Amino acid sequence: MRIKVSRREHFNSAHRLHNPEWSDEVNERVFGKCNNPNYHGHNYELIVSLTGEVDQSTGYLYDLKELSDVIKKYVLIRFDHKNLNLDTEYFRDLNPTAENIALVIWRILRQQIDEKFELKITLYETERNFVEYPAH
Amino acid sequence: MRIKVSRREHFNSAHRLHNPEWSDEVNERVFGKCNNPNYHGHNYELIVSLTGEVDQSTGYLYDLKELSDVIKKYVLIRFDHKNLNLDTEYFRDLNPTAENIALVIWRILRQQIDEKFELKITLYETERNFVEYPAH
Amino acid sequence: MRIKVSRREHFNSAHRLHNPEWSDEVNERVFGKCNNPNYHGHNYELIVSLTGEVDQSTGYLYDLKELSDVIKKYVLIRFDHKNLNLDTEYFRDLNPTAENIALVIWRILRQQIDEKFELKITLYETERNFVEYPAH
Amino acid sequence: MRIKVSRREHFNSAHRLHNPEWSDEVNERVFGKCNNPNYHGHNYELIVSLTGEVDQSTGYLYDLKELSDVIKKYVLIRFDHKNLNLDTEYFRDLNPTAENIALVIWRILRQQIDEKFELKITLYETERNFVEYPAH
Amino acid sequence: MRIKVSRREHFNSAHRLHNPEWSDEVNERVFGKCNNPNYHGHNYELIVSLTGEVDQSTGYLYDLKELSDVIKKYVLIRFDHKNLNLDTEYFRDLNPTAENIALVIWRILRQQIDEKFELKITLYETERNFVEYPAH
Amino acid sequence: MRIKVSRREHFNSAHRLHNPEWSDEVNERVFGKCNNPNYHGHNYELIVSLTGEVDQSTGYLYDLKELSDVIKKYVLIRFDHKNLNLDTEYFRDLNPTAENIALVIWRILRQQIDEKFELKITLYETERNFVEYPAH
Repeated sequence: MRIKVSRREHFNSAHRLHNPEWSDEVNERVFGKCNNPNYHGHNYELIVSLTGEVDQSTGYLYDLKELSDVIKKYVLIRFDHKNLNLDTEYFRDLNPTAENIALVIWRILRQQIDEKFELKITLYETERNFVEYPAH
Repeated sequence: MRIKVSRREHFNSAHRLHNPEWSDEVNERVFGKCNNPNYHGHNYELIVSLTGEVDQSTGYLYDLKELSDVIKKYVLIRFDHKNLNLDTEYFRDLNPTAENIALVIWRILRQQIDEKFELKITLYETERNFVEYPAH
Repeated sequence: MRIKVSRREHFNSAHRLHNPEWSDEVNERVFGKCNNPNYHGHNYELIVSLTGEVDQSTGYLYDLKELSDVIKKYVLIRFDHKNLNLDTEYFRDLNPTAENIALVIWRILRQQIDEKFELKITLYETERNFVEYPAH
Repeated sequence: MRIKVSRREHFNSAHRLHNPEWSDEVNERVFGKCNNPNYHGHNYELIVSLTGEVDQSTGYLYDLKELSDVIKKYVLIRFDHKNLNLDTEYFRDLNPTAENIALVIWRILRQQIDEKFELKITLYETERNFVEYPAH
Repeated sequence: MRIKVSRREHFNSAHRLHNPEWSDEVNERVFGKCNNPNYHGHNYELIVSLTGEVDQSTGYLYDLKELSDVIKKYVLIRFDHKNLNLDTEYFRDLNPTAENIALVIWRILRQQIDEKFELKITLYETERNFVEYPAH
Repeated sequence: MRIKVSRREHFNSAHRLHNPEWSDEVNERVFGKCNNPNYHGHNYELIVSLTGEVDQSTGYLYDLKELSDVIKKYVLIRFDHKNLNLDTEYFRDLNPTAENIALVIWRILRQQIDEKFELKITLYETERNFVEYPAH
């Protein structure tokens, strides 16, 4: 049976939900106050989980200090204290919903983590709203 | 790969664990202080999770504001600040254990949520005791 | 300067807010859903704080294991898995609001804790509603 | 002895720390990544505390449902899902640090809450950074 | 569909990460400050989850009070307020990483819990680092 | 009126409660399992609070990033992943109870923080046991 290890980090960002192909009225109706043109923001809580086999010499599946460093270097430095719509390349043409932010983080980290580990992202936008990718 | 989104809500209810087919002694032995005839209560924390595909036009799997409204309309209005045994139809003949409350909420919401979404209920009776349905 | 030590415990109870001198309409208007005749309930989080001088031989202000035992013996055994209105003597003629529950617990524990320690009660009825007695 | 009751609410906002009388270099040096011109954001947790006497007929110091409504009507509607710098009048000429946001909320609510109650604001900008006004 | 119930407990232990087949330099490089020869420690949060069918006569999958007693009797009594390396037989020749502690607890409890229930262990070493076994 | 700002940090340490002037029997009776000769450990949560006046040019009472750096430089580097009894000078002749650890941290930081700020330490040994110095 395989084991899963997880590391929790956080970042604080501004964002706005908006679909440029829609009128202001439709955006307002669909996204409500999340469509505010001047942005709002969140303390995002990010959990990165890896599944695989324990290394017998260390007793680690993956050194969580190293995982923390990878998350900082490839995710937090790009998203923390940023405006997700304006300051990152990822959300120029992609709506920064929690779902899409989780997908983007998964794609970024998938390139940095050895394929022998399954990778899962859990992202809390608030204490009440959160997403997981992949679902299982 | 599919994505999962979750919404957390809460309700405060009284309940009593009791099997009417058993003697008082057996009820007392099996359910202990949870069998108190005058009821006790909990702050239930409810997490409703939906799994499926992201809508490309919104970036949402399901609008969590709408999910919150559905939970309020079909679950919270019936359970919040109620006596689960006396004030709801669901637990007239069903013991209101955390397991059964989760099953009842799953059945209520399954009728309101499009079948294209997998539905999962997580229910915390206390910080230390919680149930998930379905298990995976 | 004096030091303060605190111990957190919890109890799960049913209660109903009601003033018997008022009509049902007034009770309903004032207490809303907390007036439900069949009761509702909460996971109460209780913090008991003592202020005084550290004992030089132990390094303790007060042994928190002993404080936990005192709370269990004089408070939890009376309130946990009980109906506060029906199962306790304290709320026969006193409305079991969070304010009054905190006052009652303070009076119970004040008789058990040496007067050389200041005593303070903090009581969470929910994560969002809590009271402190005395205020400072 | 007086009692204190508290209500916790939250709001999600964008902000930027900046002193317009300083050069960009000084702003960058003093405020670091909080000076990002395109803003960042937070899930602010707000605790509003009132101290006074319990009303003997209700057992309440202050109806926390009413307090919640007052906070929503005078604070959350102005700050939630807003850009504090651009969308509110309060931070046109005042830097929206946690300290200043707490002071502004205190002044707003002080006008709505009867003077017989002491008012205190606790504001969490993150789980690790928070402010209280007044301090005691 | 099957249901899952979980019970959360905690224990406080000292430990040291070390591979006796390696030099001090390699141990220091691999385990960093976790290799401190005089040990450090953690408040471990342990979640034990069982999956199976609900018993129709009780409404329980498994009595969580009994599960708590099993965890106390077979796990906490051995690990709580102990030095995992020195005071337990399990980590004489096994590095007490969170991964290995979770595996050991799983093996201990697997012998005590009826095979008709799937068993899962989740172990938080800190709020930011945690492991799950089995992974799914 | 003055304002208070707080910064939360954490450290993970081993410790043992013991009074060398007492027999083993007395130590065992007074300190119970906290007297385990091979140590146990905790994830300590530390909150450092400063009270004073807001600087009008920054809107800060004290830059919490700087406060975090001071705590890391003078407290965490000495206590994190250490054995408090063996690896620090502070607890050679002082029992490392939560009370005494809080007092020691207060004395360390009092030398680093300008006297115009009141300094308060809150230290959580576990979620259930915590101390504050000074008490008010």
